[in-house]
Amino acid sequence: MGQMVFKAATKPQDGLTIECGARNFKIILDEPESLGGNDKGMNPVECLLAALGACKCIVAKAFAQKNKINLQDIRIELEGILDPDGFLGKNKDAKIGFSKITTRFYIKADNTKDEIEKFVDFIEKHCPVHDTLENKPAFSTEVYSE
Amino acid sequence: MGQMVFKAATKPQDGLTIECGARNFKIILDEPESLGGNDKGMNPVECLLAALGACKCIVAKAFAQKNKINLQDIRIELEGILDPDGFLGKNKDAKIGFSKITTRFYIKADNTKDEIEKFVDFIEKHCPVHDTLENKPAFSTEVYSE
Repeated sequence: MGQMVFKAATKPQDGLTIECGARNFKIILDEPESLGGNDKGMNPVECLLAALGACKCIVAKAFAQKNKINLQDIRIELEGILDPDGFLGKNKDAKIGFSKITTRFYIKADNTKDEIEKFVDFIEKHCPVHDTLENKPAFSTEVYSE
Repeated sequence: MGQMVFKAATKPQDGLTIECGARNFKIILDEPESLGGNDKGMNPVECLLAALGACKCIVAKAFAQKNKINLQDIRIELEGILDPDGFLGKNKDAKIGFSKITTRFYIKADNTKDEIEKFVDFIEKHCPVHDTLENKPAFSTEVYSE
């Protein structure tokens, strides 16, 4: 296929409510009231966890057969630890983003425990969102005044 | 505030359509038909870009006043470059996830160009999703057979 460009665009609605678009799809992200938002959607760090879990689910479903896994069911729970005092500027020693992300795979498959664990290892290594987190991309920032 | 735990859970619906939940919020992610999906939502890498842009918008809105920026409008466009041949197993030299992410800030503010560029630098350094990508967290994986 070669290199593809994926795009998204984001803009505030009211307060910290953010409208996010990609192709013809839209999601609303926000912050809970405890973090100053209107609580109209999950927040960006929860959305990051959702993208990570969805990506792993997709890799699991798309590549189960090739890995000889008779996948009957999968669900993934994700947890990220973050100290808001970092981005709130209250503690300069606190990491700004997640310090730890835990992925819990719940898999029902007609395979041995060892086969399932090897499959999870395959998923972790072939998940584009996980790879983006594990092996950081180059970043470029452009600023336009309007 | 101290450390907080943010959570999400993901599970497939039909094919590669994935239902993602966090607190009482839900989003549907999927793949376009060209990548084997049902095209019922943005895909996980687009969602990652959306989370990144939303997080930067929120930092901008929440911290404009503190940075003496008279922010009238902001929108952010994001692009990520990814070679699907990596995760599809067609090219083992291709990076699995994004190789580059570009953020384009479009800012309308009653400030000088220099002040706006310094503010964007502040946003980049205080955005939890950006920090999670830039400074990788610890990862933990747990597997449960059901």
